[in-house]
Amino acid sequence: MLFILFDIHSLKEGVPTMEIMEIYEKLFPLNRAVSGDGLRKTLEVIGDQIPLIITEHPSNEQCFDWQIPLEWNISDACVMDKQGRKLIDLGDSNLHILAYSQPYKGWVSKKTLFSHLYTLEDMPDAIPYVNSIYEKRWGFCLEHKKLTSFTDDEYYVMIDSSLAPGAISIGEAYIKGSSDKEVMLFTHTGHPSMANDQLSGILSLLIVYEQLERSKMELRYNYRFVFCPETIGTAAFLKHNMSHLKKNLIAGYTVTFTGDNCPLRYKRSFAGNSAGDASAQNAMRKDIIEDFSPFGSDERHFNSPGIELPVGAFMRAGPGGYREYHTSLDNIDTISENSLYSTASKVMATIRNLEADRSVKTIHMGFEPKLDKSKLYSTLGSGYSDNKLAHQILAIWRLGTRYGSLIKIADKLDQNAFDLSEALTKAVELKLVEIV
Amino acid sequence: MLFILFDIHSLKEGVPTMEIMEIYEKLFPLNRAVSGDGLRKTLEVIGDQIPLIITEHPSNEQCFDWQIPLEWNISDACVMDKQGRKLIDLGDSNLHILAYSQPYKGWVSKKTLFSHLYTLEDMPDAIPYVNSIYEKRWGFCLEHKKLTSFTDDEYYVMIDSSLAPGAISIGEAYIKGSSDKEVMLFTHTGHPSMANDQLSGILSLLIVYEQLERSKMELRYNYRFVFCPETIGTAAFLKHNMSHLKKNLIAGYTVTFTGDNCPLRYKRSFAGNSAGDASAQNAMRKDIIEDFSPFGSDERHFNSPGIELPVGAFMRAGPGGYREYHTSLDNIDTISENSLYSTASKVMATIRNLEADRSVKTIHMGFEPKLDKSKLYSTLGSGYSDNKLAHQILAIWRLGTRYGSLIKIADKLDQNAFDLSEALTKAVELKLVEIV
Amino acid sequence: MLFILFDIHSLKEGVPTMEIMEIYEKLFPLNRAVSGDGLRKTLEVIGDQIPLIITEHPSNEQCFDWQIPLEWNISDACVMDKQGRKLIDLGDSNLHILAYSQPYKGWVSKKTLFSHLYTLEDMPDAIPYVNSIYEKRWGFCLEHKKLTSFTDDEYYVMIDSSLAPGAISIGEAYIKGSSDKEVMLFTHTGHPSMANDQLSGILSLLIVYEQLERSKMELRYNYRFVFCPETIGTAAFLKHNMSHLKKNLIAGYTVTFTGDNCPLRYKRSFAGNSAGDASAQNAMRKDIIEDFSPFGSDERHFNSPGIELPVGAFMRAGPGGYREYHTSLDNIDTISENSLYSTASKVMATIRNLEADRSVKTIHMGFEPKLDKSKLYSTLGSGYSDNKLAHQILAIWRLGTRYGSLIKIADKLDQNAFDLSEALTKAVELKLVEIV
Repeated sequence: MLFILFDIHSLKEGVPTMEIMEIYEKLFPLNRAVSGDGLRKTLEVIGDQIPLIITEHPSNEQCFDWQIPLEWNISDACVMDKQGRKLIDLGDSNLHILAYSQPYKGWVSKKTLFSHLYTLEDMPDAIPYVNSIYEKRWGFCLEHKKLTSFTDDEYYVMIDSSLAPGAISIGEAYIKGSSDKEVMLFTHTGHPSMANDQLSGILSLLIVYEQLERSKMELRYNYRFVFCPETIGTAAFLKHNMSHLKKNLIAGYTVTFTGDNCPLRYKRSFAGNSAGDASAQNAMRKDIIEDFSPFGSDERHFNSPGIELPVGAFMRAGPGGYREYHTSLDNIDTISENSLYSTASKVMATIRNLEADRSVKTIHMGFEPKLDKSKLYSTLGSGYSDNKLAHQILAIWRLGTRYGSLIKIADKLDQNAFDLSEALTKAVELKLVEIV
Repeated sequence: MLFILFDIHSLKEGVPTMEIMEIYEKLFPLNRAVSGDGLRKTLEVIGDQIPLIITEHPSNEQCFDWQIPLEWNISDACVMDKQGRKLIDLGDSNLHILAYSQPYKGWVSKKTLFSHLYTLEDMPDAIPYVNSIYEKRWGFCLEHKKLTSFTDDEYYVMIDSSLAPGAISIGEAYIKGSSDKEVMLFTHTGHPSMANDQLSGILSLLIVYEQLERSKMELRYNYRFVFCPETIGTAAFLKHNMSHLKKNLIAGYTVTFTGDNCPLRYKRSFAGNSAGDASAQNAMRKDIIEDFSPFGSDERHFNSPGIELPVGAFMRAGPGGYREYHTSLDNIDTISENSLYSTASKVMATIRNLEADRSVKTIHMGFEPKLDKSKLYSTLGSGYSDNKLAHQILAIWRLGTRYGSLIKIADKLDQNAFDLSEALTKAVELKLVEIV
Repeated sequence: MLFILFDIHSLKEGVPTMEIMEIYEKLFPLNRAVSGDGLRKTLEVIGDQIPLIITEHPSNEQCFDWQIPLEWNISDACVMDKQGRKLIDLGDSNLHILAYSQPYKGWVSKKTLFSHLYTLEDMPDAIPYVNSIYEKRWGFCLEHKKLTSFTDDEYYVMIDSSLAPGAISIGEAYIKGSSDKEVMLFTHTGHPSMANDQLSGILSLLIVYEQLERSKMELRYNYRFVFCPETIGTAAFLKHNMSHLKKNLIAGYTVTFTGDNCPLRYKRSFAGNSAGDASAQNAMRKDIIEDFSPFGSDERHFNSPGIELPVGAFMRAGPGGYREYHTSLDNIDTISENSLYSTASKVMATIRNLEADRSVKTIHMGFEPKLDKSKLYSTLGSGYSDNKLAHQILAIWRLGTRYGSLIKIADKLDQNAFDLSEALTKAVELKLVEIV
């Protein structure tokens, strides 16, 4: 087993102000796959923004039922007609090549060529994204409408790719808290030259990282940001981190499909009632909250039988949930900065809730305390809502034992849990409640 | 106690293709009551379609709090004016006679006659259906608007009926399964010359019988089809079958009011969580599902305190739920073949679910199995939903222990339980789950 | 500790027919505060309608965290300009004076005066209601638009008020039942010269009192009507009644904000499942039912930790829930007799439910009893709903053990519990159920 660990940045370096769409422009053209140099360059660009630790897992390593594939790299690929015109050219789009194509060079008949072409009849303008990681193939993907330009009976095919022992690469960043407990924010590194699936999750997590660090919050928990190839990368990650996560993970979230204009959704963990679920649900109480379902992206692996880590999912459209999914039309037009940032904002609210939550027990028994004595209530009675803080204090006192935690009180009050922190501190000072 | 048992058909005879509206035409004119020759002829017509076993229960037999009434038969009845014109004639409609009318012959004053007439002031074109099974009466039912044609002061009344010791008749048909456990499909034989109440349930059950037999399904359960007079017939049926049903019945359904154009509803058993409820609810998950209520038709008897058999109800409008109920307007115009067949289709889906359901336990622990090894997943990754069967297998695996049964997994997936049978078989083969 | 107890009326005196809006006219002009002669006159007017017992609690008495304030009375107050014109005059509106203002006489600069004026910039036509019970102040409240008429640089201020040891007054009326158990109907006596907050609750409770007495119901419970100053009065009331209420109170309701045109709401007690909640919820099943929230009026005190009496709340708009709240615009135009009476009607239905409720157990086991034997069912079968009483009896029988109480059966049937009383009596006579 080979581990390569290195820091791109020192953890002490300052974080530059991000221009999120500039980062997008750098990441979009890279030919990302579950392994290879496109993936490494992707992690390098992320590492320019936040201090990243890279772990590589070697080809052929067995991870549960899966085996890490050979590393795939590609430098050039095209299909030419007899006149030497390039009818398909990798230079035009990374999606033109069937990902993980074997190398190939030579003339083929039209019939043979067509058996290696992938198009979408009902989306004639779109290049589909197709891969063949676990079976040896070569092929090209193209717009269905272009098939009519293949009028010759023979074509020259050139695929300058390599499949060789190498590794898959996983990037991780940390923001440290005061306890051993950990919160994981996970996104997969995804596919080449598509915007929503999957640059959006990477971009939203970069925003979260910056905002969390700049918040100067005193953190109880360690925050682990994971940028990982989908499924096989997740298998490798889980193989090497399972016992640590089983012991320390108090909440985890996958963050993907965050750039489109569908409403943001929170999908609960399989357990459905973890601390992570409670924090996210409070943050998302005006949004869509869904029960766990066994389909989706990497969140399903974290929730598999016998793994069952408390990992929920933030997403908008989700896999297969929008027409442009897995095609060249999943480009800059499918995402917006606003969607990326507002996703990050809900993740931040979830983090603030995790940090703010406390178990609360009411200790003052009897009639409502007279809070104007403590200058918390105006002595001028002139209306109902004259003091938000005092109302929050009284609500925490009255609901404490029944609801048991700051988040559940906040849910009942239809407020953000983290907005109740000051009131909780005051309620404790006034000996109305205690934290247990 | 007298039992008369005979087979109209051998159980081995083939089932003819039914023309359901032809059967309707044969059944509609029969003067059905809770006993008598009209009922016997009804069972004969049913017996022409499916192999029926007839049981008769003699008059005066005590069944719980009820006593089987004398058998009522009627050959002719009319009301004539002084000129000998028949103002009311049984030949025009079976509904003209108050069911269970005593015989009567003689001249009566207009005032006396009118005290024996039943009309509906707010539905002047409708003949109401009225009976007097448990008190001696004679009477006629007619259209309210016709009362104005009674201008004489005296009328001749003729009712050629008989009330004599006889029996009530119950018809039953069976399709055998491999275990002792039983599923009951129950409809009452109802009233004369009305369509929805009650020929619709008879017709829908005939369709179910034919479809179930033709399906060539390997059945675990015995299917008992019961055609039974309402309430008193049900009391007799329960008296003689209670201990058998208590031991063997795993699910029962009353099927009535299935021909009108109201949406089909499933009404749960009193228990509400029987195997029969689960199967029906999955089949009806896009339709209306109602909690048990203490009103309705025979389903309430099966769910009475101390009886409490797991019997739910399929119905559309239900008793009293449509304007034409218990009048001559409940005719061919109130029902449609489509409603009859689509009811049968939901009952069939329920049966398929009963047969398909299994208790499931997840045994493969850890990361998602790699199903392309078993040729269940395409090795060509080109989109999310490339293999329905593989997705079903993974869902059964992931949800198995939590949801515990195929039906509950199907509910969660918003699919028919019986559509998951192949996936369950595969998941067992792959040692992902086991059936417990 | 000083207790003054006296009967305004003998309990035996008859109740006059109320003209509720005439009572309103008498109560509106009184300058009510949490103590003082305005409050005493208010109780006197109430006492003209129903037999009232007055309890007074002396100034400076400590009630939990609160202290009974000095008694405040005011005879005159105004602000004059140099020409002697009264720019503000208590004679125009009770709301012009900051409630609990200290006495004051003398010339002040415009700047000083303005620091003692209270207006609402966004409601320039409204005089706000402001008080300062727990801090020494003087001040005036006025329409914001009138500020422009203050053009002089000096003003003469006259406040002829007194703050001296006295008492706060609480009025109570009783209708006796046959057990020691008690139902409390509570309203606060509120503020001066505002209609919805708070004359509405007083008026609705007067209606309830009259209706309950006239109903000649045989009552199981004692009904205690409480007219009490808000918060500090409630603290005093609870101090002296807590052990009695803890032992005897089976249901309590605050009744306030009942005159506006918002829909009536029932807010559950903190426990949420008390007998009082069940009765109110059945009565309010077509209306709005809300879970307990820690904000509101006096209902929150009854539900405080360690107090937790089974007290719910009937209200319409509620505190802060309407624009005119705590201003001079909360006048006759904000309330209607219809709202006052329809609130009373729901409180009466709740009371009828409390009195009607019984624990029910099914004892007849087996098939449905034949109710025509008991003349409860017509022997003439002519439709589904021919006997409401018989259907109720059968429903009580069928649901008894499962639902356990008459109210829960009524909820299931979507009927008023008290409408099932006759059926319950019959079902007991017929030995179908027993009351446990």
